[in-house]
Amino acid sequence: MTPRIVEVRRDLLRKNDLLAHQLRSRFAAAGVTVVNLVSGPGAGKTALLEATLAALHPGRRVAALVGDLATDNDARRLGRSGAPVRQITTGTVCHLDAEMVAAALDDWDLGALDLLFIENVGNLVCPASFDLGESLRVVLFSVTEGEDKPLKYPTIFNGADLAVLTKLDLAEAVEFDRAAAYRNVQAVRPGLEIVEVSAKRGTGLDGWLARFSARISA
Amino acid sequence: MTPRIVEVRRDLLRKNDLLAHQLRSRFAAAGVTVVNLVSGPGAGKTALLEATLAALHPGRRVAALVGDLATDNDARRLGRSGAPVRQITTGTVCHLDAEMVAAALDDWDLGALDLLFIENVGNLVCPASFDLGESLRVVLFSVTEGEDKPLKYPTIFNGADLAVLTKLDLAEAVEFDRAAAYRNVQAVRPGLEIVEVSAKRGTGLDGWLARFSARISA
Repeated sequence: MTPRIVEVRRDLLRKNDLLAHQLRSRFAAAGVTVVNLVSGPGAGKTALLEATLAALHPGRRVAALVGDLATDNDARRLGRSGAPVRQITTGTVCHLDAEMVAAALDDWDLGALDLLFIENVGNLVCPASFDLGESLRVVLFSVTEGEDKPLKYPTIFNGADLAVLTKLDLAEAVEFDRAAAYRNVQAVRPGLEIVEVSAKRGTGLDGWLARFSARISA
Repeated sequence: MTPRIVEVRRDLLRKNDLLAHQLRSRFAAAGVTVVNLVSGPGAGKTALLEATLAALHPGRRVAALVGDLATDNDARRLGRSGAPVRQITTGTVCHLDAEMVAAALDDWDLGALDLLFIENVGNLVCPASFDLGESLRVVLFSVTEGEDKPLKYPTIFNGADLAVLTKLDLAEAVEFDRAAAYRNVQAVRPGLEIVEVSAKRGTGLDGWLARFSARISA
């Protein structure tokens, strides 16, 4: 990249960090915990979130913001849970940023929430650089994407607090090499905990709920 | 995005378009046809390219450039075909651009090639905006990613000349709705031709070779 691009990118990230810091203070003051879900396209963020909202609502006061370049399909899908859900469409922008999140939350009463999930744009690169003021960043990767994804997209794995390996029901069909996948995660992010789920079969969801709850109450 | 960001992005794309134009002239003068493969992470670009190089080399003079944020795993994997292969690592950059391609080709004798495949960074957003001087842009999407991807990532489908639906061997396991997927492709890019393959089973490869050959000789 040319020096001018690098400089503007630095300004952009600095501005985002400032806004994310303000969001984080606002979330803390309101007593809401925010979880940012990141992954490549079609790794199963919406399916996991659908199961999560169904399990938590209405016992806990949960809501979701969901980012896509286009369509409000995911918001409508998640809205069936009964939890408040809002779609952010980014147009051609490859990630959510703190400004988009702040704008989407503008008229929300955060004090009425315990937990807010943010489903990022499906992209294993750009969302890594944009803090959204979250308490927990969760990276999802599916058995169908291949065991090498942590090595090829190290930044997003390195910035995550928890990993979720999805679509376990397809592991055998794709001859998934679990040991290699775990080794690759540890190579880029030593100590990163991995939870395995199949949202389709409903397996591993209790473990996911237990692990992420433990992490946000820690 | 702020006006300053928009302006710098416009400059960046203008500069890329200029370089891509020069590359396109250079490719034409050398008589080499260039195919740019784009998709999300793990959709099967490398597997399709592996099968393609194996089928074409050494009968046709083929080569490949492959882009990833990190690792040269794909170049090593594709290099087994015997065809010349070079890795471009982008660091944190979410796409290949014309400058990276020009630099990677700097000392190559393009006149010794008939066909050059460029495997882009796995990302359904950013690569859409960067012309690499290619003759044909091919978008891949897998049955495991879900039928809605064309609607959610319209720009990359809209800019493609040919689509490849991959991992057909998993269609039944994921209850893939082919009619919905086709309808969604046609909604964002009317007339876009779709080729179906399973690189794992080796099915559909003859159709893929025939279709892309027909498109580049047209």
